[in-house]
Amino acid sequence: MHLSERLRVSDDGWRLVETGWDADRAPHVGTNFLCGNGYLGYRGTSPEHTADDLVALVVTDTYDTVGDGWQELVTAPNPLLVAATVDGSPIGVATAERVETSLDLRIGEFGARFAQRVDHALVEVDVRRVASYDDLHLLTQRWQLQADADVEVDLVDGVDGVVWSLHGDHFRTVDLDDRDGTIVAEARTVEHDVRVVVAAASTRHGGESTEVDPVVEPRRRFRRHRVRLPAGTPLVVDTVAAVVTSNDVDDPGDVAPALARRGRAEGHEQLLSSTTDAWRRIWDDLDVVVEGHLADQTTLRFSAYHHRICTPAHTDHLPIGARGLSCQGYQNAAFWDQEVYNLPALWLSEPHLARNLLVYRHRTLDGARRKAERLGYRGAYYAWMSTDTGDDVCPDVFFVDVLSGRPIRNHFNDWQMHISPDLATTVARYVEITGDERFLVDHGAEIAFEVARFLHSFVLYDEVRGTYHCIRLLGPDEWHENVDDNAFTNHQAHDALAFAVDTHERLAADHPVALEQLRDRIGLTDDEVAAWARVRDRIALPEPDPDTGLIEQFRGFFELEDVTPEQVRARLLDPGEYWGWPNGVAVPTQVSKQADVVMLLWLHGDRFESKILDANYHYYAPRCAHFSTLSHPAHGMVAVRIGELDRALAHLRTTATVDLLSTAPSVVGGTFIGGIHTAACSGALQVAVQGFGGLGFADGRLVVDPALPSAWTALEYPVAWRGHHLRVRIGSDGSVSIESHADNPGPVEVVVRGEPVTVEPGARAAA
Amino acid sequence: MHLSERLRVSDDGWRLVETGWDADRAPHVGTNFLCGNGYLGYRGTSPEHTADDLVALVVTDTYDTVGDGWQELVTAPNPLLVAATVDGSPIGVATAERVETSLDLRIGEFGARFAQRVDHALVEVDVRRVASYDDLHLLTQRWQLQADADVEVDLVDGVDGVVWSLHGDHFRTVDLDDRDGTIVAEARTVEHDVRVVVAAASTRHGGESTEVDPVVEPRRRFRRHRVRLPAGTPLVVDTVAAVVTSNDVDDPGDVAPALARRGRAEGHEQLLSSTTDAWRRIWDDLDVVVEGHLADQTTLRFSAYHHRICTPAHTDHLPIGARGLSCQGYQNAAFWDQEVYNLPALWLSEPHLARNLLVYRHRTLDGARRKAERLGYRGAYYAWMSTDTGDDVCPDVFFVDVLSGRPIRNHFNDWQMHISPDLATTVARYVEITGDERFLVDHGAEIAFEVARFLHSFVLYDEVRGTYHCIRLLGPDEWHENVDDNAFTNHQAHDALAFAVDTHERLAADHPVALEQLRDRIGLTDDEVAAWARVRDRIALPEPDPDTGLIEQFRGFFELEDVTPEQVRARLLDPGEYWGWPNGVAVPTQVSKQADVVMLLWLHGDRFESKILDANYHYYAPRCAHFSTLSHPAHGMVAVRIGELDRALAHLRTTATVDLLSTAPSVVGGTFIGGIHTAACSGALQVAVQGFGGLGFADGRLVVDPALPSAWTALEYPVAWRGHHLRVRIGSDGSVSIESHADNPGPVEVVVRGEPVTVEPGARAAA
Repeated sequence: MHLSERLRVSDDGWRLVETGWDADRAPHVGTNFLCGNGYLGYRGTSPEHTADDLVALVVTDTYDTVGDGWQELVTAPNPLLVAATVDGSPIGVATAERVETSLDLRIGEFGARFAQRVDHALVEVDVRRVASYDDLHLLTQRWQLQADADVEVDLVDGVDGVVWSLHGDHFRTVDLDDRDGTIVAEARTVEHDVRVVVAAASTRHGGESTEVDPVVEPRRRFRRHRVRLPAGTPLVVDTVAAVVTSNDVDDPGDVAPALARRGRAEGHEQLLSSTTDAWRRIWDDLDVVVEGHLADQTTLRFSAYHHRICTPAHTDHLPIGARGLSCQGYQNAAFWDQEVYNLPALWLSEPHLARNLLVYRHRTLDGARRKAERLGYRGAYYAWMSTDTGDDVCPDVFFVDVLSGRPIRNHFNDWQMHISPDLATTVARYVEITGDERFLVDHGAEIAFEVARFLHSFVLYDEVRGTYHCIRLLGPDEWHENVDDNAFTNHQAHDALAFAVDTHERLAADHPVALEQLRDRIGLTDDEVAAWARVRDRIALPEPDPDTGLIEQFRGFFELEDVTPEQVRARLLDPGEYWGWPNGVAVPTQVSKQADVVMLLWLHGDRFESKILDANYHYYAPRCAHFSTLSHPAHGMVAVRIGELDRALAHLRTTATVDLLSTAPSVVGGTFIGGIHTAACSGALQVAVQGFGGLGFADGRLVVDPALPSAWTALEYPVAWRGHHLRVRIGSDGSVSIESHADNPGPVEVVVRGEPVTVEPGARAAA
Repeated sequence: MHLSERLRVSDDGWRLVETGWDADRAPHVGTNFLCGNGYLGYRGTSPEHTADDLVALVVTDTYDTVGDGWQELVTAPNPLLVAATVDGSPIGVATAERVETSLDLRIGEFGARFAQRVDHALVEVDVRRVASYDDLHLLTQRWQLQADADVEVDLVDGVDGVVWSLHGDHFRTVDLDDRDGTIVAEARTVEHDVRVVVAAASTRHGGESTEVDPVVEPRRRFRRHRVRLPAGTPLVVDTVAAVVTSNDVDDPGDVAPALARRGRAEGHEQLLSSTTDAWRRIWDDLDVVVEGHLADQTTLRFSAYHHRICTPAHTDHLPIGARGLSCQGYQNAAFWDQEVYNLPALWLSEPHLARNLLVYRHRTLDGARRKAERLGYRGAYYAWMSTDTGDDVCPDVFFVDVLSGRPIRNHFNDWQMHISPDLATTVARYVEITGDERFLVDHGAEIAFEVARFLHSFVLYDEVRGTYHCIRLLGPDEWHENVDDNAFTNHQAHDALAFAVDTHERLAADHPVALEQLRDRIGLTDDEVAAWARVRDRIALPEPDPDTGLIEQFRGFFELEDVTPEQVRARLLDPGEYWGWPNGVAVPTQVSKQADVVMLLWLHGDRFESKILDANYHYYAPRCAHFSTLSHPAHGMVAVRIGELDRALAHLRTTATVDLLSTAPSVVGGTFIGGIHTAACSGALQVAVQGFGGLGFADGRLVVDPALPSAWTALEYPVAWRGHHLRVRIGSDGSVSIESHADNPGPVEVVVRGEPVTVEPGARAAA
């Protein structure tokens, strides 16, 4: 069935197929049909493409800054270039007659098929490409051409070191070499002299080669093949590429070519097979099955796929970039999205990956400490945009006032302080759900204490009222900067402080030695802990109005002009205007970029009565312009909770198709912001599993409290919890069955709609 | 001598004469040559002028608001219209050949002389106009015409109720009547139904009248005279006008015509004579004599004249408007200018007038309490713009972004909180200098306590640092809004708190009953007073950098871009752009509208070493754009103190000529901001007397510590202090002589350059 005019899904719910080639859509296709594995990402571009077509092989852990530019990962030299002319005509998707590109979600296989008429012959090309999940350094690509008449093919393949890069040329040098048929590019980064080595080992089958010549250009090294190809016979170029950097091994210049050659020896089919096995294991923990609606099923799988390939599963010292490895967008940095969107979609399916991300946050505490100190605070003020060191890479200026051409100083980096309590409360929930006390002792406690320390230094005390306040900040609704006592932020801060105090108490009781060591190391005193408790008890917590039930987004919000997003849009003098602070059209109004009271209800809904959720959802939703892809999943979660299931499904669909339907722009104010919306992907999973699927956790037990939208006849999802693997299935009649894996260590109690159900290993229980 | 091409001063230093008529300069001439007496102001326009020429008779205490417009005083119907045609040609300054307008500062007499050729005759007109200081409700005008040939004059005189008004038509009705030759206009204001009654009683002499007819038009009532005038004989129209409102008396409709008729009976010459006597007494306490520089002498007298006529000397329930009664500019409201600029120029010359203004502030405490409550504070948050009730009449929006056409929300009204401590510290200094303990008990203490209460509710406590902070405000440099711990503001707040604590202690000792009554009335507790002392002791006080001596204007100021005002100006895309917050060109830079650290040094210079003053003056002065007329006098005061006398004189001259040389614009961003700069007038006096003249007060004694600029050969000024009247004269050799009035109650000790000098009544002492 079709998702849009050009895009359809296969009947098995595993393949996405884009028909035709459209230069405007190409940046989106390149993003959507990304191959990746958490170590690298290779965009869904055709093998003949170059930098102008936004080809990118983005490699993790290669953060680099050029001059005054912004830090970002490097785009490595492209080892998969294959470009051909047939009888003198260049062949490619842009000039072809029939083009189909595709992504097979089951194994992350990019495909391109196209036909092109040249002179007397019809030429057909078929491309398959996979990023290995068996060896994360490997990519394998099969390029195949045949024609219905004898043709002369002039072919180049090799490494293209002329790359697309957003913020400067990250290579001080690029050395290219052909080592016994393996083309090797060794690039050295500007800032830290990281060696990024790419090796391409290719084989050619079919046709009759008349000549093979080296092609050497600046930053490029190819082999040129002139091939006579008889009608109806295939010409195949298999390329196995390896990417290794000096952050991975000491000698990437040796390792990469060796890996590529070994991969070539194994062959494309074998690499495909081992990756298929790896993906099968991944999908066991990942696949959410939706019955009754093929499009929902497929878009959810698409979300799960990208959710997984953006996650650096192989390491605990790297973040999830807001655009993953799909490009250099958003500087490949983690935001609070990682803790609020990505990570909770992992902690009941692949909790060790959630742990990795939190260990990363612990490793970057020093960066957060530096930020706090620089801004005059104590403890850990986490980076708004965090890369490898945890120092904030968010620039002071990133928007331009299109009316004046002047830069706008936004304060995302220095005022958006909910990032720190967001992290601490995520640690709290991770520990609560997983029971990972070791993590708490080794990592979580230090995060909790340093965040509490930061909060204590951030809040200001109103002596007359006897209350602590968060002053001058911006909440999730980034259009309204410079506000006080943002409801979401203050509740998060409250919980972060409570967590720190509780953790201190818990460690004092259960891990006194570890606590003492930690206290010594960070110089923590009892006075500080007492202060945290005091702030926790007296921080201003915006409460629902007793009459209307409404929670004010921040102090004074309800005094702002009450207009709709459409009315505000009509005031734009230029469609490219920034709507937000300091003087965009939304600033004097209640129109939000994303509704942070809805965020509050999502994360803290259990502290409010249902009618409060209802009143606030219905107040804030129509005043929200949803200019962030983070917005719809939050709305979806709350809509499920108040029983508005069709609205919730609409929010889910908007979330899961933002990239597929290209509803978000690629470029804003001259800045490329394209690439996959990783938080939306994980957010879609949360709405499905934790929203409709009702998967949760309370009082030490798993909870399943589901409610399916009418369009779905069944929902099934995997659960991994404290060594147990379950599958939960919800039928259209509301029936819930829970299957416990035979290898599970013992019975599991799950609370289904308030009733405890116990499932034995290997058994299935219905409720 | 000439001040500019068109403007000259008379050799006696008392007259200003403008040559020619220029439509662009007319708004400034109308302002500069204003007649006034603190009750009314009549602009220096020609009698034939109408609303289009910015004729205005502005009457105090008639504040009115039309619809959503801004509150302002009404422009009363104009009773002094005299318009003539001679042989069919209209006569007036705009069509005349030779025009001279003038102001005689000695008695505030406006003059206009012009000659106009009509057909066969040369016509000469001479106009004299004075606002009475004997009866503040009266204006008297003599209009005289003669021609060198027989002519026919067609003349109208009477009341023109079609008035120039900035923010709406303030009259719900205007009733006009001719009562026995006195034309009476009774206008009723929109908001409070105030009756503003204007009566014009005129007499005509000379020529031969052929006819006198009434002319009745909407809102206008004139008499038309057709006169045959023989060559060389004068035609004179004397008009005595009375203005009375229902805020003055119950029956203004009876009183005004009676006053006008009585004035007519007395006659122009007699009214002039009584006003001359009144002015003589005023100048005794006011006149600052500068020898050696006629222009300085005259511009200083011009400043003194306007300083005096803007002051509502007759009452203690009205403020000094920022533009006095010269027009409706700045809504005829008082700003902090009143306490920091106007009032200190009175307290050692006419201290009872300073007292009036402070009693006004006491009377408007409830307005300040309402503002505090509305904004979530306690105590008294004085209005940024204060009229009769003390409620803030400052609009939320008054500038427009010229690039987008959108309104700019500035926060002068809700964030510029130094207004309250400015008032309290002025009360403190007034009481200290005058010894007016009665005022302290009856009025000052309540102001002090309520301001301290406000400050306690405004500051926020940083528990980690142990300091109180003023957060989110704007200081005197209004371009930088939303700043913290502004140096000027925090020092002012400190002193206001100290004053409140000291006053509480003083009253407890000396006026325990009055204190108890006041405490009861305002519900004051000991805990509050203890809190004020605590905040006083721990408020963040920006101190000089130990290396550079520089005081940071506010937290983070030195991190702003360090460029010159000229560099910033070059960035303007439109000359009409607002430079300030939120995104004007000055905002990201250290360029200030007025240097508030210089304000700090002026008012608190005694708490810093001289080298600190020096360092900061020289740092901040070149970074200041002087976009406020408040800026130069502050710089002048500091320049005197650091011995930069020529610079100080330059600041004084800029201050004293801002209106005369029209260096400030009349209209900005579509808003009329013309009119006399009353604070600059008083500020010029302060630089002369308290700056160069060195007049001050310390440890209970008058201080004279003078330093004359090289251009001045002598300076002489009057002092009124605790019942004593002195004249201080400083010679070019630095000699100081002090003359004590014979009626003084006893000897006075004055500390001249550190040495006490005692002067007996009727004697003169030299030092």
